[in-house]
Amino acid sequence: MKTVEIFCIGTELLSFNKTDTNSLWLAEKLESMGFCVIAKHIVKDDVNLLQRLIRQELHNTDIIITIGGLGPTQDDVTCQAVCQAINKELVFTENIWESIQQRFMQRKRSLPDITKVQAYIPEGSDYFLNKVGSAPGTWTSYQNNIIIMLPGPPLEMIPMCENDVLPKLEQLIEEPKPARLYYGTAGLPESLVEEKLFPFYQKFNELQVTLLASPGQVDIYILIINENASIRETLIQEVDKEIMLILKDYIYTRTEKSLEEVAGELLTRHKKTLAIAESCTGGLLGNRITNISGSSEYFERGIISYSNESKIELLNVPAFLINTYGAVSKEVALAMAEGIKINAHVDIGLAITGIAGPSGSTPEKPVGTVHLALAAEEDTLHQHHIFLGNRAQIKYASTQFALNMLRKYLIGIK
Amino acid sequence: MKTVEIFCIGTELLSFNKTDTNSLWLAEKLESMGFCVIAKHIVKDDVNLLQRLIRQELHNTDIIITIGGLGPTQDDVTCQAVCQAINKELVFTENIWESIQQRFMQRKRSLPDITKVQAYIPEGSDYFLNKVGSAPGTWTSYQNNIIIMLPGPPLEMIPMCENDVLPKLEQLIEEPKPARLYYGTAGLPESLVEEKLFPFYQKFNELQVTLLASPGQVDIYILIINENASIRETLIQEVDKEIMLILKDYIYTRTEKSLEEVAGELLTRHKKTLAIAESCTGGLLGNRITNISGSSEYFERGIISYSNESKIELLNVPAFLINTYGAVSKEVALAMAEGIKINAHVDIGLAITGIAGPSGSTPEKPVGTVHLALAAEEDTLHQHHIFLGNRAQIKYASTQFALNMLRKYLIGIK
Repeated sequence: MKTVEIFCIGTELLSFNKTDTNSLWLAEKLESMGFCVIAKHIVKDDVNLLQRLIRQELHNTDIIITIGGLGPTQDDVTCQAVCQAINKELVFTENIWESIQQRFMQRKRSLPDITKVQAYIPEGSDYFLNKVGSAPGTWTSYQNNIIIMLPGPPLEMIPMCENDVLPKLEQLIEEPKPARLYYGTAGLPESLVEEKLFPFYQKFNELQVTLLASPGQVDIYILIINENASIRETLIQEVDKEIMLILKDYIYTRTEKSLEEVAGELLTRHKKTLAIAESCTGGLLGNRITNISGSSEYFERGIISYSNESKIELLNVPAFLINTYGAVSKEVALAMAEGIKINAHVDIGLAITGIAGPSGSTPEKPVGTVHLALAAEEDTLHQHHIFLGNRAQIKYASTQFALNMLRKYLIGIK
Repeated sequence: MKTVEIFCIGTELLSFNKTDTNSLWLAEKLESMGFCVIAKHIVKDDVNLLQRLIRQELHNTDIIITIGGLGPTQDDVTCQAVCQAINKELVFTENIWESIQQRFMQRKRSLPDITKVQAYIPEGSDYFLNKVGSAPGTWTSYQNNIIIMLPGPPLEMIPMCENDVLPKLEQLIEEPKPARLYYGTAGLPESLVEEKLFPFYQKFNELQVTLLASPGQVDIYILIINENASIRETLIQEVDKEIMLILKDYIYTRTEKSLEEVAGELLTRHKKTLAIAESCTGGLLGNRITNISGSSEYFERGIISYSNESKIELLNVPAFLINTYGAVSKEVALAMAEGIKINAHVDIGLAITGIAGPSGSTPEKPVGTVHLALAAEEDTLHQHHIFLGNRAQIKYASTQFALNMLRKYLIGIK
């Protein structure tokens, strides 16, 4: 696979409030075409730093793409840095200069003198005229490398890529293109997923497998590269079969959907309505459920029962349960789920009560103690967890396990 | 100024359209302390590539900070790469291992064997124990450089930086340190803030002023660098006076607090209790309010009244109001606020009803139409907005304006 490194150039890109969207867009295009983006560098407008970095990285990658720093002002140093890195001269290119002049004439604008610098490109380069701005793109071969320079504004960079650069890059791709498999799992910590996958790693040790963990969720990405198309097809099927066998129902999506989206689809498919009662999560569960457009079809209401009074008044939780077992208990969680199910006239009631911290813990009930309950027609389910982390982490993990409990109920796993 | 390069390590940061928020956060902290971040590198989990890059960049910068790649699995290569780059051995550190074991014991979880690898750090390094996850942070001196390794999950990286790493970095700063003033404003769009600040820009044209806009909020950062300490002190006072004069009560914080935190402090100070009724925001308002530790002192309950029935049953909204004006109307918003105030026996009822989209709009009520209402002892307030953006943006802006409405009520501005 051909490797690419992307350089985003501009001091302003390093300040805290700028997200560089150019490279996200470009990296996705390149990956889907079958290139491997191995690094991105965001570098200030410093010609020495930049030329050293480019010179070094020519040894590490096949293709270097720079974005930005092609303007006419003193802090635009990309072209100069590239020329220094590959020992090439800058040459004036009449065609580019004419195109820049035409753009200014069309707009009836006077042409600043400094603009002429943008018609200089590394000797022996191909170039792409800029239909939106002044700076051209360039394509320079150097030894075994290709160096591509692109303008920084997305409105110039993106059409230039789509029309000129990506089609030219396409010709470099060797068939067959790599395949990428994805599995989203819920309910297992990363270390346990890893342990379960150990035999898989041994069996398919040539594959690139990446795990990405977030609270209550582990995403698995598998990249399959194989010269022979039919072998690759067989391999994809074998890998898929093996992963599904190992992780079974822990896998809740193979298309990067969120747990709330999958749960929503299951509620819709099974024609079930839902209401929730949440205490320590304070509205986060409702917020996640209602992030899904169309959730009003199955989500009836939610109660954020922060006080004991609200649990008693709105969820029919008997006061003696709270007095006897405490508001954070299996008994109260079950009563909350049952209460919201009945009061909201829905098929499923889902409840969370817990201690999100940092205060509110007791020796028997440490911070992170959470009880989940689900009440449905013929079933009543309960889970007890002790989540680690800060307030936000505990809240999020609680909703993640509650949504997974709902999902598992809807697909018939207890 | 001491220079810093940040390395974010993880194949997933390159391939799957993940925005790296860690380095944005860290770059801001470093810049405000007086470091100069000259480059950021986002690098795949490739030990050879990473060690070459680190080895090279040691010549270009004073400090290297790596984020991520410290997990126990095979694709976590940061520690190995750093050791190779600076020719140091990995050494087992009993203290770290004990802390990891304790964390697992607290959670009553079995400790996977592979976790032990996280107790190995470069010889001669200081380390920072991880209170949220397993991987420790490290601080290694090498020739004239410092290399710092941090865990990748923001919930682990941020507290470790705040508690341990930034205070240690602070000691490296030469005087005089730059001063940074911060103002958080709510309720004005960026263009209006910009307009109001125009005379300020003219008066203090040598200052670096950065505006950062998010839905319903504009943050203002002003950097003051001056060799002479007494001139700098006078300048700070002049700038502060001018900004406060221009933006007055639009400024809700000068210490980067969130609106929910400021509103919570005001509720506590004025000994007022709060309950909420939210429709289109689906729990987001409650979630934000309860993100503040101690919010149970003033937050009594919330109703996520997604259905009309729940508005009628739980908030006493007369059915004829919904039938006459629609669920998204001034009349229903006011009834919701009044209803929750009475039913929850609190001082203030706060309500949101609106159309978060993308469906549910009518010609008279486009997507983004939101009515806010506040009911208190002697006051009833209402606001009507049409927010732009997608579902998540509309939900967020609604809660932002609702919290600001609450804040303004509590400080006596109508």
